[in-house]
Amino acid sequence: MRPTTVDVLQRIEKALERAVATGIGDGCPPLLQRAVRHAVFTPGSRARPRLLLAVALACGDDAPLLADAAAASLELLHCASLVHDDLPCFDDADTRRGQPTVHRAYGERLAVLAGDGLIVLAFENLAWNAAQHPERLAPLTGVIGRAVGIGHGIVAGQAWECESEVDLTAYHREKTAALFIAATAGGAAAAGQQPGPWERLGERLGLAYQVADDLRDVASSAEELGKPVGQDVAHDRPSAVAQLGIDGAQARLAELVTEAVDGIPACPGRDRLAALVRAEIERLLPAGLAQRGR
Amino acid sequence: MRPTTVDVLQRIEKALERAVATGIGDGCPPLLQRAVRHAVFTPGSRARPRLLLAVALACGDDAPLLADAAAASLELLHCASLVHDDLPCFDDADTRRGQPTVHRAYGERLAVLAGDGLIVLAFENLAWNAAQHPERLAPLTGVIGRAVGIGHGIVAGQAWECESEVDLTAYHREKTAALFIAATAGGAAAAGQQPGPWERLGERLGLAYQVADDLRDVASSAEELGKPVGQDVAHDRPSAVAQLGIDGAQARLAELVTEAVDGIPACPGRDRLAALVRAEIERLLPAGLAQRGR
Repeated sequence: MRPTTVDVLQRIEKALERAVATGIGDGCPPLLQRAVRHAVFTPGSRARPRLLLAVALACGDDAPLLADAAAASLELLHCASLVHDDLPCFDDADTRRGQPTVHRAYGERLAVLAGDGLIVLAFENLAWNAAQHPERLAPLTGVIGRAVGIGHGIVAGQAWECESEVDLTAYHREKTAALFIAATAGGAAAAGQQPGPWERLGERLGLAYQVADDLRDVASSAEELGKPVGQDVAHDRPSAVAQLGIDGAQARLAELVTEAVDGIPACPGRDRLAALVRAEIERLLPAGLAQRGR
Repeated sequence: MRPTTVDVLQRIEKALERAVATGIGDGCPPLLQRAVRHAVFTPGSRARPRLLLAVALACGDDAPLLADAAAASLELLHCASLVHDDLPCFDDADTRRGQPTVHRAYGERLAVLAGDGLIVLAFENLAWNAAQHPERLAPLTGVIGRAVGIGHGIVAGQAWECESEVDLTAYHREKTAALFIAATAGGAAAAGQQPGPWERLGERLGLAYQVADDLRDVASSAEELGKPVGQDVAHDRPSAVAQLGIDGAQARLAELVTEAVDGIPACPGRDRLAALVRAEIERLLPAGLAQRGR
């Protein structure tokens, strides 16, 4: 029987709970525990781990424990980046996913520590779950590390905001696409496949996600989005809407989705994955725009 | 020929340079590069990676590339923790290792990002260098992750400072001893040995290091220390000197060194390692106290 979306979401939540519970163990200070749980279990789209598992399933899902761990680790890293992005020295955001940000709820020190701890936990979690397939741990760690690292990952992407001259292509690729590349390449690596051919799907999807995010930032309500809108303009951040206008950004989005689907490597679950990718991007469009576009 | 201390220090600096250069690659934003290099290459004692390599050598050093990587990764994590500890929301320190702290030199945002990036790099670096011994990567990642994680690592230790009631034993074990436990257990794991039996040496040495650090905080000059003194009192932090007095803390230090040496497991290089451990602790004592004690 083919797994449904509900099954996939359950796998992700269970894997996240296992990772966080194991990390906390019997020694984690109480407030740090609460800050970490607040960062991870405030309801989010889980777009990246869902994509990772979709690719692992398309590749045969022969190591579900490792794939689940990789999905959870990717989400932990995403959560870590959100916690640190929200800090006063960056976006100084009050809400995230409809809840107070971690530093508003627990203070800045615990927000820094929760983010740090989530990064560590992500890598520990991969190692804890690689016992059956030790030869897959190094490539998987490599793929996921690259997505967040200083060379081409989200840390690099965020750091472009501190430069006077910004490499816009690198900025978008790293700030958002990097985690999607890790989702597709990581899903393949967890299932014992070469990650390289899967990078293009993730990159195009990640760029599409960023364009959709930029559209939401101008065309959604704060209620719909679960965080403040108009942040790109407020922080003078590069945005596809500022560059191309709303219509141009929508056309760019459609183009990226086509390129993403065309980029899916041959695999047993190719058609199903293509349908899922299209549905996912549809879901990302702000309600106002989706209606307006038809 | 036996490696000298100079050889060991060269191995560490080369391994750090390889790790940082590989991490930076061709994509890292220029200011982030400089912040990361500032954090890593401001001269430090390299006490933890030296200990890791000393244990790997005592165990036969059959995988020097992996041992060097483990030593470098441990130091990268130590540097990351210093950068984040120095942030305005924690110690708000102006200087570290005799230089401006990263946030003073490059701003708070790049200090947060440099710390995050160094944590990621530490785990990537292990994976990059485990190709010859894939089965050692999971235990090594586990040992090193535990030392910095939310359950028993330095993130947990730092988070005790945010609690109203502090578990002092856990605080000292995690804030300082954890990285020393990772040094000894990690050195053994890199050399293909069981890490468990090596934990006691690291724990005792780490606690000794903390006592020595507390003594230096009251009995050194800022010039000798390369950072401001009197920080424990200023921040009302738990300290062995506050608890036991200067003489009591010195007695405790001697006791810990004896326990550390007694805890060295049987191995080819046991005697040499014991001598090294004693010399290391001697080096840690503040000049004023070392003279006064004789």
